[in-house]
Amino acid sequence: MTTFQRIVLAARPKGEVQADNFRLETVDTPAIKDGQLLVRNHYLSLDPYMRGRMSEGKSYAASQALDETMIGGTVGEVIESKHAKFAVGDTVVGTLGWTEVAVSDGSMLRKVDTTHVPESAYLGSVGMPGMTAWYGLNHIMAPKAGETVVVSAASGAVGSVVGQLAKLKGCRVVGIAGGPEKCAYVVNELGFDACVDYKAGNLEADLEAATPDGIDAIFENVGGKVFDAALARTNAFGRIALCGWISGYDGQPTPIDNFRLILINRLTVQGFIVGEQPELWPEGLAELGKLVAEGKLKFRESVAEGLAKAPEAFIGLLKGRNFGKQLVKLG
Amino acid sequence: MTTFQRIVLAARPKGEVQADNFRLETVDTPAIKDGQLLVRNHYLSLDPYMRGRMSEGKSYAASQALDETMIGGTVGEVIESKHAKFAVGDTVVGTLGWTEVAVSDGSMLRKVDTTHVPESAYLGSVGMPGMTAWYGLNHIMAPKAGETVVVSAASGAVGSVVGQLAKLKGCRVVGIAGGPEKCAYVVNELGFDACVDYKAGNLEADLEAATPDGIDAIFENVGGKVFDAALARTNAFGRIALCGWISGYDGQPTPIDNFRLILINRLTVQGFIVGEQPELWPEGLAELGKLVAEGKLKFRESVAEGLAKAPEAFIGLLKGRNFGKQLVKLG
Repeated sequence: MTTFQRIVLAARPKGEVQADNFRLETVDTPAIKDGQLLVRNHYLSLDPYMRGRMSEGKSYAASQALDETMIGGTVGEVIESKHAKFAVGDTVVGTLGWTEVAVSDGSMLRKVDTTHVPESAYLGSVGMPGMTAWYGLNHIMAPKAGETVVVSAASGAVGSVVGQLAKLKGCRVVGIAGGPEKCAYVVNELGFDACVDYKAGNLEADLEAATPDGIDAIFENVGGKVFDAALARTNAFGRIALCGWISGYDGQPTPIDNFRLILINRLTVQGFIVGEQPELWPEGLAELGKLVAEGKLKFRESVAEGLAKAPEAFIGLLKGRNFGKQLVKLG
Repeated sequence: MTTFQRIVLAARPKGEVQADNFRLETVDTPAIKDGQLLVRNHYLSLDPYMRGRMSEGKSYAASQALDETMIGGTVGEVIESKHAKFAVGDTVVGTLGWTEVAVSDGSMLRKVDTTHVPESAYLGSVGMPGMTAWYGLNHIMAPKAGETVVVSAASGAVGSVVGQLAKLKGCRVVGIAGGPEKCAYVVNELGFDACVDYKAGNLEADLEAATPDGIDAIFENVGGKVFDAALARTNAFGRIALCGWISGYDGQPTPIDNFRLILINRLTVQGFIVGEQPELWPEGLAELGKLVAEGKLKFRESVAEGLAKAPEAFIGLLKGRNFGKQLVKLG
C-alpha cells in the first residue's frame, strides 16, 4: 500500500454544504519515524459539529483549514508501529479525519477492547455522541424519576442515547423526529414513551398530547420552531441542555419567540460541548460501554461504503436523511 | 381615622396598562382582634413584576384577584397593636399592598431599624429589588474581577444595585439605559464604567465600543432587541441572569435571533425570581444594609405623592419614565 485516499476541505460553504466543498485526493503513504504509528481507519464518524468547523464564522472551535484533511472521529487498526505503547493489530479510536490511513504520535489515540463492544460503537454510543448524551442528561438535565424529558433528533446518535438513559432513570421520555419510520423506531426499538413527528403538521397539538404533564427537561439538538414549541410546554424549574442547532447551521435565521418563558418558568438553559469535560469521560464511557455490552443501550447505524461517499453522507446527515449514527466504512 | 383609601384591580389590561384598570376606594378602618396589628403605610413600592400579576396568563405567580387590594411591598409604622411582637411606633416592612392602612397578623411583617438606613430604602436597595440584584449577581453571574458585566435598566432599582456590586468586585461594568440623563447618572453617580443609551440609535456600535473585550455576564431586566444585541457580544462560558422581560409584558412578540449563541458560546442562562430563595435573604439584606449605611451603595428614588397617583406612576414605570426606584408616598 503505497498510496491512500483522503478528503480535504476545498472551499467553505455559502449556505448549504455542497459536494464540491470537498476534494478527494490520493497521497503517498509516508514512512513513519520512531515514536509514530500508522493507522488504517475502518470507520469514519460523521457528526453535525463538522458543519460549524467548515465556516470561518465564530463557532466553538477553530475553523477547519482549507486544503487539509477534514476533521473527524475514526476507529481503525494499527498497521505499523514504532511506538512503545501501540502494537500492530491494536484497535484505536482517535480523530484522524476523513482519510483511509494516518500517521499518529499516539497522543490522541485510545486503544479499545472490541470483545463485547463492536468497534463502530466507539464512534457512537460509546464515543463522543454517547458522552454528549451522558453529560447533558446527567450534568445539566439531571431528571428525576417520573419527570418528562423531551429529546429532539431522537433517532440520532446522541438523541437515542439520551432517551434510553432517561428511561433507565424512570422518566417519561418523548422523542421528536422526522417521519413515521424514525418515530416508530424510537418508540418500538428504543423504548421511548412517545415520539412526535415534526413533519406531520400538528407539532403543537402532538407535543401537547405527548407531554400531558408538561416538560421538565429538554435535550436540544435542532433548535428553531420545533424547539420553540417545546419551550412553550416547559414546567417551572425546567432544565435545557443545548447541544446542537442544526436548523441554523447554514445561516438561516432561527428566531425564538418563547425566550421569555426562561424567566416565567425559571428555567436553566446551558449550552455545552462535551470535549470541554475530559475529566468525566472515563466514568461516562465505562457506563456506556457496560450498557452496550449488556444489550441495554441499543443503537442503529447508517453506513456509507467507501471514503468517496463521505460528502454525500454528510450532506444527508445535515438534512436528516440518515437514520441512526452516520458512519463511513472505509474500503 | 375611621376610613382610609386603597386601590383595587378593577379590570385586567388588554395590552398596555391603563389608569382605569384600577379603582380608588374609601373603606372603613376595621377594629383589630387579639394577635393583630394596624399599620399605616408610609411608602408603597411599584415594581415591574406587578404587571405579570395583573394578567390571567401563565406567569410565575398567582394572578392578582379582581376587586382586591393591589399587591405591593410597603413600609410603614404600627399605629395600633394587639400583637406581642409589635409595638406602636415600630417601622415595619411587608407586602400590604396599595393601601394607606392595613390589618396584619404579623406573619409576613419584618421590623426594621431606620437609624442608619432610611425607611424607603427597605423597598429598594435593602429590600426586594436589592436582593434580586444581589442574588442574580452572586449566585448566577458570579463575575470575577476584570470581567465585563452588562446590566440593562441600569438606572433602575435593581440594575443600579447590580452594577455597583459588580464594581465592588472589580468588574468592568456597562449599563444600558434610555436617554442621556439616565446614562450620565449611571456613569457619574453610580460609577459604572460606561452606559449605552439604547434610544440613541446606534445600539450595536455603542455596545461594541463599550465592551471591547466582549461580555462575560449579563443581568437582564428588559429583553427584546436590546438583549439580543448584548447576547451577540457574549464570550465563551458567559452567564446570564434573566430577571425581567419588560419589553414583552404587554404581550408584544419579542423574538430573539441570537439564541444559538447560547450553544456557540456555551452560555448558562437562568431565569429566577428572588422570592424563591428566602434562605438567602438574611445574608443578602445584611450586606446591602451595611453598604447603604456606609454610603457605598447609592440609590435614587422617584416619588409620587399620594395613593391616587399610584396608577399613573406604575404606568410610567412600565414605560421607563421613572428615574430610579419608583415609590408612592402615602399621605
